[in-house]
Amino acid sequence: MIETKHIDELKNIVGNENVYNDKAHLIAYSYDATRTRYEPDAVVFPKNEEDVSKVLKYCNENKIIITPRGAGSGFTGGALPANGGIILALEKYMNKILEIDMQNLVAVVQPGVINKDLQRAVEEVGLFYPPDPASEEYSTIGGNVGENAGGMRAAKYGITKDYVMAMRAVLANGDIIRAGKRTIKDVAGYNTTGILIASEGTLAVTTEITLKLIPKPRFTKAYMGIFPSVENAMNAVFKSLSAGANPVAMEFLDSLVVKALKEKLGVDLPENAGALLIGDVDGNVEEEVTFQLNTLKKSFEENGASSFVVANDSKERDKLWYARRNASQSITIYGSKKLNEDISVPRSKLPQALKEIYTIGEKYGFKVPCFGHSGDGNIHVNVMVDGSNPQELEDGHKAIEEIFKLVVDMGGTLSGEHGIGLSKAPFMEIAFNEKELNLFRSIKKAFDPNGILNPGKMGL
Amino acid sequence: MIETKHIDELKNIVGNENVYNDKAHLIAYSYDATRTRYEPDAVVFPKNEEDVSKVLKYCNENKIIITPRGAGSGFTGGALPANGGIILALEKYMNKILEIDMQNLVAVVQPGVINKDLQRAVEEVGLFYPPDPASEEYSTIGGNVGENAGGMRAAKYGITKDYVMAMRAVLANGDIIRAGKRTIKDVAGYNTTGILIASEGTLAVTTEITLKLIPKPRFTKAYMGIFPSVENAMNAVFKSLSAGANPVAMEFLDSLVVKALKEKLGVDLPENAGALLIGDVDGNVEEEVTFQLNTLKKSFEENGASSFVVANDSKERDKLWYARRNASQSITIYGSKKLNEDISVPRSKLPQALKEIYTIGEKYGFKVPCFGHSGDGNIHVNVMVDGSNPQELEDGHKAIEEIFKLVVDMGGTLSGEHGIGLSKAPFMEIAFNEKELNLFRSIKKAFDPNGILNPGKMGL
Repeated sequence: MIETKHIDELKNIVGNENVYNDKAHLIAYSYDATRTRYEPDAVVFPKNEEDVSKVLKYCNENKIIITPRGAGSGFTGGALPANGGIILALEKYMNKILEIDMQNLVAVVQPGVINKDLQRAVEEVGLFYPPDPASEEYSTIGGNVGENAGGMRAAKYGITKDYVMAMRAVLANGDIIRAGKRTIKDVAGYNTTGILIASEGTLAVTTEITLKLIPKPRFTKAYMGIFPSVENAMNAVFKSLSAGANPVAMEFLDSLVVKALKEKLGVDLPENAGALLIGDVDGNVEEEVTFQLNTLKKSFEENGASSFVVANDSKERDKLWYARRNASQSITIYGSKKLNEDISVPRSKLPQALKEIYTIGEKYGFKVPCFGHSGDGNIHVNVMVDGSNPQELEDGHKAIEEIFKLVVDMGGTLSGEHGIGLSKAPFMEIAFNEKELNLFRSIKKAFDPNGILNPGKMGL
Repeated sequence: MIETKHIDELKNIVGNENVYNDKAHLIAYSYDATRTRYEPDAVVFPKNEEDVSKVLKYCNENKIIITPRGAGSGFTGGALPANGGIILALEKYMNKILEIDMQNLVAVVQPGVINKDLQRAVEEVGLFYPPDPASEEYSTIGGNVGENAGGMRAAKYGITKDYVMAMRAVLANGDIIRAGKRTIKDVAGYNTTGILIASEGTLAVTTEITLKLIPKPRFTKAYMGIFPSVENAMNAVFKSLSAGANPVAMEFLDSLVVKALKEKLGVDLPENAGALLIGDVDGNVEEEVTFQLNTLKKSFEENGASSFVVANDSKERDKLWYARRNASQSITIYGSKKLNEDISVPRSKLPQALKEIYTIGEKYGFKVPCFGHSGDGNIHVNVMVDGSNPQELEDGHKAIEEIFKLVVDMGGTLSGEHGIGLSKAPFMEIAFNEKELNLFRSIKKAFDPNGILNPGKMGL
């Protein structure tokens, strides 16, 4: 437990009104999207980078643990104060879009800016920020950078790391550093930007982020392919991409998800669809959109699609996307608790990976509805269990462990976009050998010798 | 100097025929494109990753310095054994394209593969590897990764780091690690791939690289804009890009370069051109190419272009590109020695940066012909001096230092694509403060506690 003198000193640093250790605050900052709860000892709201620096310096000298936090919308516990200490809450003050630079196609933001607010602001001036995690309406750019968030548009446009040009950050000892530049090319010094991305708040606290923007695509159309089986759909995914298709998104729903959408939400989807692929294509000219749709249609039909639907207006497009966007909430018909993992495999392995994942589910007697970003090989696998049944929970976690082993054996990763945090920390040894884990520990120590920044995350 | 017993032990590890310390080898491996020379104590040719691991382990235990080397084509001395020790020459055996994976659009290569050989191999099967440094015919992928090489096509397609999905590498202690995956998304563990790129052989020796490929663009056309002044051309660069143009390349030649090309090589270029912009646009459909050309033409004309030329066939295209490709060799008419720096600034700062660079040149009485990758803000600045005149050399270096200060003040970087190596090491303190340099030193120590890997590079 943090001592009263520390609370007093933190109040001296950031102001009385910006440090709390009353029960209401401790509860409010105890959770994230994992629904696991850990109460911090105090919640601190830095007003600016200087506050962050002073707080870190003080905490480092006094070995006080710090968990940086944006919106607390993470799926793996990255923002949970699992070992107590203080929550450094960046969303209250450090939430400004500092600049939209139309000349260099760059935005400069504070970490607490909400992803969708940035998207809206840049689209208003004809620009585009592609990374669109499902949490876009509430997750922060700081959190997106910390977890290297993905999203629907990653198939064509890549993920958060592909847009971070530069950062300002505060090291554990309070040192303020700059990483990267507002230039496309920069090879001076180590790529500290690269290592800070996806480091889950364990290396530094980000205080400013410079993001690459692109011109907003002029034409977009949505499509849907209906397939008799998951295998057909997964073959269509990787074969259409290797045939030259470059869809913005290529999202997958399996038959369990389709059934759930129809039953729970009454969504109008084809009977007996074995799997669906839904997505967008875009371009600067209409002919490019047509080229993309034709390429997809051909590959889909060659891989068994029974039909290929194109949305002709925004109403039709919304209808196609409604199904995808409501996949997650619909599948609760299969179990009160969803063990949701975001595995990622090389795309050519998708047919085999899905087949074996269903077999693992059958072995334990669980439904495992799957959906997600098949265009980039990143699938959300949901082992549905009765959350009130301890045996089912235990078996569910065994099934998850088998799935992770399978995925890693196929050259895949434990996490495509959610991060490791606490939830996946026990599985790090499946994915990394002792030499690789030692390197991670050395990197951690180089940035944070006293281990005050978000300890316990990533299995470190 | 390395002792005889060390030579003998290295021969035991990699075979007698793969360790040399005769004068011919020491000279052959003493230089790079900087034309500075440092002889190593021995040259070692590892046959495979296991050899690399054993050599590093042995050298680490015996504190023997190692300089990894690909083709030795670097411009900043990254592959020079400035502190003696052994050269680890990766081009002799570890030069295989291991796999071109058509299903996942991925190539797996050893570090000694020559860039252009990879480009040719993937283009034969309809794929495309965009990074194209000017050294593409001889530089190796391992070197490209170590320096994070750029090239002409970076304006649209990015640089080496944007294509490295995964690596295998050997740490200083001989530990073999894997970094990244053959997946688009991977957020498990620290982004060690990210920190190894551009680390100039100071953190690890790369033994295998997994690269992202893309489908080969179906249509390409070349264009040239002729401008009355550098300022017009530089305004056209950033204004056309912010207007939505997305050229593959947008290369700049100033009037001194144009004059040199005409005088030295008899290239047919317009009289009295203040500056030229030359480049390519591409697309999946011809209409996209037309859209790009129209967007460029409009922006160029709005910014004072006197003409906009489109190459209608490959012969015309070769003619336009001949000028750009021969810029570097033509400018020797202005001085026997070229102090060539590859500065990079945010694109909107290009007009002012070039103006001030010419002013610095005038102050010292040097011609400073400039050309390069204006589409990404990366310009090759050449201070031309009489190499036999010590005073001119000294003044030339003073001019360079002023240019670096100017560039950094404008939010630019010491190097867009050449790296820091030895040549730019003295200027690191212009670009980074002591806290940032300390962080670099900590990272170096985390990977290489004994400092055996390429010491002295990057000012570390």
